[in-house]
Order: sequence, then C-alpha cells, then structure tokens
Amino acid sequence: MNTAPAILVVDDPDARARLLDAIRFDDRGLVPCIAQQHDTGEVLMMAWMTREAADETLATGRVCYFSRSRGGLWRKGESSGQVQRLVDLRVDCDGDTLLALVDQTGVACHTGRHNCFFQALRDGEVVPIAEPLVSPEELYGR
Amino acid sequence: MNTAPAILVVDDPDARARLLDAIRFDDRGLVPCIAQQHDTGEVLMMAWMTREAADETLATGRVCYFSRSRGGLWRKGESSGQVQRLVDLRVDCDGDTLLALVDQTGVACHTGRHNCFFQALRDGEVVPIAEPLVSPEELYGR
Repeated sequence: MNTAPAILVVDDPDARARLLDAIRFDDRGLVPCIAQQHDTGEVLMMAWMTREAADETLATGRVCYFSRSRGGLWRKGESSGQVQRLVDLRVDCDGDTLLALVDQTGVACHTGRHNCFFQALRDGEVVPIAEPLVSPEELYGR
Repeated sequence: MNTAPAILVVDDPDARARLLDAIRFDDRGLVPCIAQQHDTGEVLMMAWMTREAADETLATGRVCYFSRSRGGLWRKGESSGQVQRLVDLRVDCDGDTLLALVDQTGVACHTGRHNCFFQALRDGEVVPIAEPLVSPEELYGR
C-alpha cells in the first residue's frame, strides 16, 4: 500500500463517453461500483454511480459516487479526507457493474474500519471481524 | 488457487437467520453480492441474492444467487459446472451489500473469462483486457 500507482485521468471527453456508453445504468440511472485496493486486492466498499459521477471520476482521477440518501454527487473523502484515487475502472460482461481499482487514503468505511465488510458469522453469532482504525469523530468531527 | 479451503456450511437455521437479519434487502427483496476468490483476492463477479438464496448459500456452502432475468434461484454452476464454494459471507457496515469469499471452480464469467470485469479503457478505446479461457460452447453446450 506504499506504492505510488499511476492515477487514471481521462482528459478526452469522447474517450470517457465510450466507456460510459458501455455501462447499462438501471431504471434509476444508477450502477453499482465495487472499490478494490489496487495492490492488496482488498474489497473496500460498494456504492453507486450515476453517469455524471462516473464521468467525474474518470475526468478527475478521484472517485465520485452518487449518494442515494443525499440525492447528490458524493466525492468520496470530501468530508473525511479519506479519498480514493482511481487506478482503473472496469465494466463487467453485461455492463451493469463497475469495478474501480483505487488507491485508498486512510480508511474506506465511515465506521473507521479499513473496509466496510466486517460483519460475519463466528460461532453462530454475527460479530465484527475488524476493528476501527480511527474514530468516526476523528473522521467527521472536524 | 490450489489450496483446499475450509468451506462454510452453517447447519443451524437460527445462526443463518442471525446473519440474514443483518442484511437490508432492497424494495425488490434483493441484495448485491460481490464474489471474491478467497486466496488471490480477484473480484470475480457481482450478482444478486434474495433472503432465500443467501440462506441456501449458507446452508449448502455453495453459492446460490437470484437471477433477475429468470426470476428464480440461480445455483451458480448448475449449467456450466463452474461452481463457487463458500469460504465466508460478510455483510457491510450498513447491511446492504454482501461480500462472498469463494473458491471458484474454473471460470466465473459466462463468456469463459476468469472474471467478469474485463472491459476497460486503453488508449481511449473500450477493449477486453482478458481473454476467454474456455469457450461458452464448452461451458453451456453440453
């Protein structure tokens, strides 16, 4: 995680449009996007993008989702500083899911854990299998 | 990929229900599930589960999705033989996405590629960045 990867920034709007045209957004105009740490393979989170969010992601090299709860663009890390730089953006076989290879600054999860997938069964009980690395107050209390 | 991982089979229906109760299915009764090869970290595919599909997955240790196009349970590999054995099933922070760590037999993608995320921009064009390892005819023509 200490490597400095090449960040994908696509300046050409026509090139961005070619990738965006390969995406089948759902009837709400959304597509799920999985964020994976590019070098470790850790699956960090899943969130949603609109065409506008995916376009901004490609144009800036910083991952921008669409917040369904807030109803607007969600520039990952704009509140917490925990940004995701884009290394590659891949579209799946039928165009309805994205995989973003990213370089995560800090932690991906709003709970302060490095990734969001920390609830699992152990001995028949649902338990957290990872601990917060930073408190939510530190992330959002500034 | 040559290790023989412990397969997660949850015999106790109450334990399964505890994990299922941590999942927030959407208004269609669906939750997205990311499948990741447990040892290499490769993100293989994303598909959807109903509560019934997730329960069967936990009960059998073989991944079962819900096919939105067919409107029924989709026991991964039942046509192609390319099954996914379950190593762990994780629920994300807000309960609306699953991460299945699996042991994939053969290839995950119906195109014969090892994973589904093979479309990406290279030199401004959308190109396949992986080739099929097996033909769809071999997978489904039996």
